[in-house]
Amino acid sequence: MSAIHRHRGQYDWEGVSLDHYPPEKEMKGVSVRWLIGAAEGAPNFALRYFEIEPGGWSSLDQHAHEHGVFILKGQGQVLLGKEESTVAFGDVVYVSPYEPHQFKNVGDEPLGFLCIIPAREENG
Amino acid sequence: MSAIHRHRGQYDWEGVSLDHYPPEKEMKGVSVRWLIGAAEGAPNFALRYFEIEPGGWSSLDQHAHEHGVFILKGQGQVLLGKEESTVAFGDVVYVSPYEPHQFKNVGDEPLGFLCIIPAREENG
Repeated sequence: MSAIHRHRGQYDWEGVSLDHYPPEKEMKGVSVRWLIGAAEGAPNFALRYFEIEPGGWSSLDQHAHEHGVFILKGQGQVLLGKEESTVAFGDVVYVSPYEPHQFKNVGDEPLGFLCIIPAREENG
Repeated sequence: MSAIHRHRGQYDWEGVSLDHYPPEKEMKGVSVRWLIGAAEGAPNFALRYFEIEPGGWSSLDQHAHEHGVFILKGQGQVLLGKEESTVAFGDVVYVSPYEPHQFKNVGDEPLGFLCIIPAREENG
């Protein structure tokens, strides 16, 4: 069913819950909000908002599904294959299938970004 | 292949071209930039940035594929089914399959938003 998740400000949305990843060695300070996910039942894709705390990082991942990333706030460093690049507001990152990738917060405020995945990977 | 499209500011990106829709009765003042599309070859989804000029609108559409929309700037009015809602920065709109939908700019600056579609619809 169609839906609008209204932005309440501060990257918080009506009808969207906040999930923190449990502390583990592979990542640090990462939270996720599912903006379009299982609740909406989109057949083909899911849309998440991630935040990484200052000094934090996402796990070093490599998998069959692609990512589409749009940076919304903060200063990040993205590893794509063997190449590291800095990213900030508006930068678009396409992570192709099986490309090793990792996001790090290299700034003083939270690093926030949208991340699209195929729907069939939404539990993966 | 993985790629970064760096934001040059003003919602313009390196390696991304600007396409205007030809003037027609069904829409007014709409342009699109394919941020992740045929050039990147993402298997499952495509990501576009749309702008609608003040006073403009997108066509009234209804189709099998779903949309995921994230408003980036301006003031819009979205029609979902028979319901109209105003939207602004950060609001997320999920348009389910076959839901009639239309976006209008009701503000004084361009209305800019991200729009995700399934990859197999990227030429539709």
